[in-house]
Amino acid sequence: MEVKLKPGERIDDLQRDGLRIIQDPERFCFGMDAVLLSGFAVSADPVKGIAVGNNMEGKRVLDMGTGTGILPILLSSKTKARELIGLEIQEDSAEMAARSIDLNDLAPRVSIVRGDIKDASSIFGAASFDVITCNPPYMIGGHGLQNPDSPKAIARHEVMCTFEDVAEQAKKLLKPSGKLFLVHRPFRLSEIMVTLTKHSLEPKRMQLVYPYIDKEPNMVLIEAVRGGKPRIAVERPLVIYKAPGEYTKEVYDIYGY
Amino acid sequence: MEVKLKPGERIDDLQRDGLRIIQDPERFCFGMDAVLLSGFAVSADPVKGIAVGNNMEGKRVLDMGTGTGILPILLSSKTKARELIGLEIQEDSAEMAARSIDLNDLAPRVSIVRGDIKDASSIFGAASFDVITCNPPYMIGGHGLQNPDSPKAIARHEVMCTFEDVAEQAKKLLKPSGKLFLVHRPFRLSEIMVTLTKHSLEPKRMQLVYPYIDKEPNMVLIEAVRGGKPRIAVERPLVIYKAPGEYTKEVYDIYGY
Repeated sequence: MEVKLKPGERIDDLQRDGLRIIQDPERFCFGMDAVLLSGFAVSADPVKGIAVGNNMEGKRVLDMGTGTGILPILLSSKTKARELIGLEIQEDSAEMAARSIDLNDLAPRVSIVRGDIKDASSIFGAASFDVITCNPPYMIGGHGLQNPDSPKAIARHEVMCTFEDVAEQAKKLLKPSGKLFLVHRPFRLSEIMVTLTKHSLEPKRMQLVYPYIDKEPNMVLIEAVRGGKPRIAVERPLVIYKAPGEYTKEVYDIYGY
Repeated sequence: MEVKLKPGERIDDLQRDGLRIIQDPERFCFGMDAVLLSGFAVSADPVKGIAVGNNMEGKRVLDMGTGTGILPILLSSKTKARELIGLEIQEDSAEMAARSIDLNDLAPRVSIVRGDIKDASSIFGAASFDVITCNPPYMIGGHGLQNPDSPKAIARHEVMCTFEDVAEQAKKLLKPSGKLFLVHRPFRLSEIMVTLTKHSLEPKRMQLVYPYIDKEPNMVLIEAVRGGKPRIAVERPLVIYKAPGEYTKEVYDIYGY
């Protein structure tokens, strides 16, 4: 479907199944974290021999705080999910994401709902999803921000919702044994595990993302299972670059080049 | 000091400052985990520019469940700690560790106390240590063990104490802002963080140990601070082998070869 662009917007090619996405660099562009989260979420259950993407076959999936809609759009191609919904609080972002869904003719399998993460279980109902993905704001609070209402501030800082809100709502929204896939910053790892566990979301799988093999990790990918038993599989390191500007094979595989 | 060996015992050279240790392979020999924990514990506060080992200068240090005494013996050389005590519940192990202290003429700076981790705060008193190290049993429970009373079973399985016991006692034994250094298995990472936090021991630093760069980690090193604020520094990966049988430079550095 043809869609209209607003001033400042552009269409980017996602290099996968002809998918495209509308973005406004002045507002917010999706980052590698969203792409790595999509890769982590579809590679679940490797030990059970479930092929990439098949873990979501027939499932109902929610992306909390979807922004541009990048996660539902990527997962529409990477999985056989039955339904993918992106929840976004910012009106302009939600409307732009909805146009990206139209641009790719993904309706009604993929849709965007405007709403607050803190109201998510009221909007969708308890135990209404098999899978939740979330690329939440990483930074604590919004103190000292020059523009706390700006789209970038809302995407990066916990201005509109805290990690506790995310965990509380995810617990309510997931069916028993439903899965939450998260990307976050390593400096909050301990707090994340404590908060997830408090809300009966047991961390079951984790992967640290290292920019280079000899550097500190800058992202952590976590899979939590509602009502799971305590035992976590920590995966091999995901290293981004083997040399400056040169991705490792793992990253090319996730991007699908 | 010359010491007598019992049947089955041998003296191993620690390749550091002429230090030696008595071990009985039928009972238990220290592993790489103990050595890596000693390296992790002395490399604390790199961001503050504190040189290796100087972080323990003048400190009183307890090793909970010391076994052969490997940690106090290594730390006696690697640090300027004022006093190092190893607590060990098994009579034969405690007695053998005490002979290793004599063998190296480390008394009275280093000593071994026979006792139960669960009674540690009664034995030593509350807030009596600046630093605690612990290489606890990794495996949950002792069900199905053929010899639950054997030294190897007690060292590896939570037969005599649980991780909760370790955290509870460490909290009591540490002064405010005192540090606990742990090595454990990654599969218990989330539970460890939840349990430490529950006992006001905030995980502040963590390093995953990967046997090879493309394999799952098999150890995790954790520094927790009594009463610390929630923020954890996840360090660069510690990789053991660059090729089969060939250690990486980092491992040689920790061993001190």
